Amino acid sequence: METPESLSDLLHQFAQLTGHKVLVHGGGRTATQLATRLGIESQMVNGRRITDAETLKVVTMVYAGLVNKTIVANLQALGLNALGLTGADLNYMRSEKRPVGEVDYGFVGDVKEVQSDLLANLIRQDVVPVLAPVTHDKKGNLLNTNADTIAGEAAKALAKHFDVTLVYCFEKKGVLLDEQDDESVIPELTRDGFRKYVKQGIILGGMIPKLENAYEAIDAGVKEVIITRADAILGGAGTRIQG
Amino acid sequence: METPESLSDLLHQFAQLTGHKVLVHGGGRTATQLATRLGIESQMVNGRRITDAETLKVVTMVYAGLVNKTIVANLQALGLNALGLTGADLNYMRSEKRPVGEVDYGFVGDVKEVQSDLLANLIRQDVVPVLAPVTHDKKGNLLNTNADTIAGEAAKALAKHFDVTLVYCFEKKGVLLDEQDDESVIPELTRDGFRKYVKQGIILGGMIPKLENAYEAIDAGVKEVIITRADAILGGAGTRIQG
Repeated sequence: METPESLSDLLHQFAQLTGHKVLVHGGGRTATQLATRLGIESQMVNGRRITDAETLKVVTMVYAGLVNKTIVANLQALGLNALGLTGADLNYMRSEKRPVGEVDYGFVGDVKEVQSDLLANLIRQDVVPVLAPVTHDKKGNLLNTNADTIAGEAAKALAKHFDVTLVYCFEKKGVLLDEQDDESVIPELTRDGFRKYVKQGIILGGMIPKLENAYEAIDAGVKEVIITRADAILGGAGTRIQG
Repeated sequence: METPESLSDLLHQFAQLTGHKVLVHGGGRTATQLATRLGIESQMVNGRRITDAETLKVVTMVYAGLVNKTIVANLQALGLNALGLTGADLNYMRSEKRPVGEVDYGFVGDVKEVQSDLLANLIRQDVVPVLAPVTHDKKGNLLNTNADTIAGEAAKALAKHFDVTLVYCFEKKGVLLDEQDDESVIPELTRDGFRKYVKQGIILGGMIPKLENAYEAIDAGVKEVIITRADAILGGAGTRIQG
């Protein structure tokens, strides 16, 4: 949703969704563009950004600043009482710097604690939290955390209070049987089906952690997970995962 | 407070202030640095930044992203329940784009409405609002608004609920009788004194709007305004203005 038109379209659809809602966003393309303009190299490993001190500044500016506040202002114009949050704000999501293993991801945070009551109370007051993919360690350090992870963790926390549907938006209409055929959406994906497709090499790349997050969310009480294109969140299309 | 050391020192002092509190920050130097690195010219008129579309992105990234979240994370580490806000968040401060007069300031907002009950309720829940100098027009547009103005408007709104002391921090120990002598702080400044010093050319430049904001705040019920150096907010030093 990193063009003004597609963002506007998505937010209009989002505003029409019934029930309480939370929006989680990324901003990776804009961050990469800004990094390039600043002469900072963007290094990705397994689809995750290696986050050195300069890169952390870039993602904080882009995710928590430009993208988050653009969305908040647009939702306010649509009559939703949006509130932009990083994990540091109200300490709603605490993480710890990922230990250095085979890869040193730098200032990347693994989520350790989500204040579910706090999020639920905001939502009950008709606030629409807009969650940026930045967390903190409660020791003064901001940390870069993948947006899919933020969405999964927020959904799991909210499942203690509400019936939660977690919708992952990306550039395809759903999980595809054939990468070359945009219409080959798998309508329902069981855990066994997922394992089989991974073995067969049909599901691969960044879709694997996304789906792992999805099943983890289901295990933690989330009612259903839908994987669909950003312009189709109202239509009921996409790949559906249920408990 | 745009070096890590001076920021840390200020935030430690801020954390020790008793009573409810709100922090309002700027970030102009960092914004100018980023703009320079991006090849965007920073144009200032009367100490105010001309804000074209590209510059608005820069200030949103720096003020609402980097500076705001760095402060929020550091205050959380100091045990304060900080929450970063632009005017768009919860629609707490609405502005309108400044009409084009002698100068076209671009995407600069003049404050029109502050939700004082909302701010007061946050504060009563021991939340420490951290206010970035970015507002919105409730029509989807973010607008650049001077930090001194944000501070003055927030103080006036909160004066309906609390006894408010408004502390303006800058690089000098207070309003100086002699710009060359850092020790020549005027301890108390009446409105008549202010007018006299302006006529005599003793008070000039950016200090004039700061003091005009100060008297306006006093007129609107703020108990006192203190102008001092960022490293002296605990000491009771500086120039004091009372009703």
